[in-house]
Amino acid sequence: MKPISVGLVGLGTVAQGTLQILKNNRGELTKRIGRELEVKHVGARRNRDGVDLSGIRISRDLMEVAKNPEVDIFVELIGGVDYALDLIETAIDSGKHVITANKALIAQYGNELFEKAQAKGVTIAFEAAVAGGIPVVKALREGLAANQINWLAGIINGTGNYILTEMRDGGRDFASVLSEAQALGFAESDPTFDVEGIDAAHKLAILASIAFGIPLNFAAVSIQGISGISLLDLSCAEDLGYRIKHLGIARKTKNGVEMRVHPTLIHETQLLANVNGVMNAVQIHGDAVGSTLHYGPGAGSLATGSAVVADLVDLARLLTADPINRVPHLAFQPGCLKNLPILSIEETLCPFYVRFSVRDETGVLAEITRILAGHLVSLESVIQKDGVVGEPVVLILLTHTVHEKALNNALSDINRREFVVGQPVVIRVETLGDQG
Amino acid sequence: MKPISVGLVGLGTVAQGTLQILKNNRGELTKRIGRELEVKHVGARRNRDGVDLSGIRISRDLMEVAKNPEVDIFVELIGGVDYALDLIETAIDSGKHVITANKALIAQYGNELFEKAQAKGVTIAFEAAVAGGIPVVKALREGLAANQINWLAGIINGTGNYILTEMRDGGRDFASVLSEAQALGFAESDPTFDVEGIDAAHKLAILASIAFGIPLNFAAVSIQGISGISLLDLSCAEDLGYRIKHLGIARKTKNGVEMRVHPTLIHETQLLANVNGVMNAVQIHGDAVGSTLHYGPGAGSLATGSAVVADLVDLARLLTADPINRVPHLAFQPGCLKNLPILSIEETLCPFYVRFSVRDETGVLAEITRILAGHLVSLESVIQKDGVVGEPVVLILLTHTVHEKALNNALSDINRREFVVGQPVVIRVETLGDQG
Repeated sequence: MKPISVGLVGLGTVAQGTLQILKNNRGELTKRIGRELEVKHVGARRNRDGVDLSGIRISRDLMEVAKNPEVDIFVELIGGVDYALDLIETAIDSGKHVITANKALIAQYGNELFEKAQAKGVTIAFEAAVAGGIPVVKALREGLAANQINWLAGIINGTGNYILTEMRDGGRDFASVLSEAQALGFAESDPTFDVEGIDAAHKLAILASIAFGIPLNFAAVSIQGISGISLLDLSCAEDLGYRIKHLGIARKTKNGVEMRVHPTLIHETQLLANVNGVMNAVQIHGDAVGSTLHYGPGAGSLATGSAVVADLVDLARLLTADPINRVPHLAFQPGCLKNLPILSIEETLCPFYVRFSVRDETGVLAEITRILAGHLVSLESVIQKDGVVGEPVVLILLTHTVHEKALNNALSDINRREFVVGQPVVIRVETLGDQG
Repeated sequence: MKPISVGLVGLGTVAQGTLQILKNNRGELTKRIGRELEVKHVGARRNRDGVDLSGIRISRDLMEVAKNPEVDIFVELIGGVDYALDLIETAIDSGKHVITANKALIAQYGNELFEKAQAKGVTIAFEAAVAGGIPVVKALREGLAANQINWLAGIINGTGNYILTEMRDGGRDFASVLSEAQALGFAESDPTFDVEGIDAAHKLAILASIAFGIPLNFAAVSIQGISGISLLDLSCAEDLGYRIKHLGIARKTKNGVEMRVHPTLIHETQLLANVNGVMNAVQIHGDAVGSTLHYGPGAGSLATGSAVVADLVDLARLLTADPINRVPHLAFQPGCLKNLPILSIEETLCPFYVRFSVRDETGVLAEITRILAGHLVSLESVIQKDGVVGEPVVLILLTHTVHEKALNNALSDINRREFVVGQPVVIRVETLGDQG
């Protein structure tokens, strides 16, 4: 079957991430789809260093991509509103499906664009427009489709959340954190869209529409930024058990729909209050499921590229498989499952928590650590619990990452010593990072 | 267009939730799909009180449902392995699509069942088999399809997480919390599947397969339960900055795949460490997106029913729309969008944080609370910050839920008083509950 042909405009952060994923994961993607994705045509006013476009047609006139009859799917990643709108309308007119990461465009012109696409028998996919790499559009439109959505609340601007997190953690004021974020590239030189809540309002308008089934209405969102948040308020909120986050909130009430973006106190026991730095999260409440929360990176080259490529896979599956086999049962085409070896538990590599009961004698800790070191088990921390004189002493060790087998060997050596009382308790530690 | 005809076997917790959602949200579901879902035939060995099955054919012989040629989609919600397998194979043989919440069945017989379904041109949907109402199968197979998945780690058994949470919060041992959980209906009378990790291992085997594209291999999962976890270890872990959670972990390493279920220390700053009670969460790490986390109720009648009905919507959309319009742009069919009124910010109903600077005079707090009460604004808490004598005093108020307009009226009264120094700072509070 001939590859699905992709045309892409823009060569900024998200476009670079998208191209890199399509290149790095080409083999896996073909196994997921059952067909190849091929970037045929890229439109960019200027090339960027380090972007490999070999074998791809390049045009300085972006309209050439939108009109190219050989392109099946048109991916718009230039941002901005007016020219992006022209390009997408042209692509639709020439019968192409469209993928965009452009929240401003969808929030402001989505109603017209969707109508036009419908009339032409094509679709517009926009997972990347909201909350970067978090598949929250899919969750709302499909995963939670059983529900009447009551409300949703999200941290949907990474720059704003980074600033509030740094203010709180570092005790530094808004202006100082903002200028540092600009120097680090986390904030734009004109930060208005992020810190004044406009970007979040674009995303909220989209989320509210797909939650409640109402037309897009960006103009109706109430917007307040975070530039007025002081350290004093962060600390007073904390005294009350709250954190201040910049939330987008949409709620269906009996009188109508609330859509608002503003600094908000959330109790510190809530997961949303513990979403820090540039991370995003959207909590959604449905009448059947109750609350679900969807967390991940809200921006970044590869993270947002992940959402663009997910839309490509979705569309390519629709254009390829018979509907019933749209998504393979185990995510990859049946003939493409890998028979990877499954490791035994002794081959696990992770840190360990070990609790010993030992006799209250001198030299015991030294002997235990000597034996562990002999098996190349090194320690991150040791706690000795004060106990009753004459009773066994509790020793807690936290190891660095080791093979379970090495630890087990060390422990059977240690267990033979007379100072050990009973079996030690061993519990694995998960760092939620790469441990291999 | 004639309705999609659904046959359902089982009348337990999940079946009841599924039937209730199909009834309560019938209108919304039709607007999402563009076609009606109709439960035509229910198979149950005995009826249950309070389940309204009027107008639905009922059979005591469940095979009648699996064979009924008028049924398009067969929903298996009886649980257990042997008979469920018979039923599903019969349904596939008679050309029906299948939806199941049966994790044991998929984990142990999924490879054969998927092959059989593929050969017959039907599909088996199983979102409800993993993590209840959280759409994590969809996230892995579709939302994160751009990624090579590196690892995932999840709290995927609500009973186990409830027990560990109660042990930690209440300082009570395993046995005492378990018997309370049994009395409350959170744990089965035979709790082995939950507390010894077998249920979690079923789910982990499914997650690992769809993450890495490997055949299902439940027998290869290393399993350890939580019945050996002591209060001493919970508190020692806490001294080190960790929580103990019962995790399912799957990781792709250069040597092969790890699949393991066991008690695990996770640092308290991680979101997973803060997932408490019966809630579930799965953290997934992909090479492009980095970490995402998917949180929600892992069990329960309506929550698991939400996943069953999401699969019904998915299948019904495939059987109804042309592929390109499978999922409507704004989640509901274009002709079905509602023009709900959008409320102004003054109509917002929520608690508020208000910080005043006031002159250091007696009677100021009394006067402020008197004016607030006059506008029906009541207070949850008040903090007066110690300051320098002669300088303005900082007063922090947290109100109960009020209309923003009422608060604004009260504040303009208060601002006219001479004791007020500068403008008060007002920040909204979000309780993440129903505020209307």
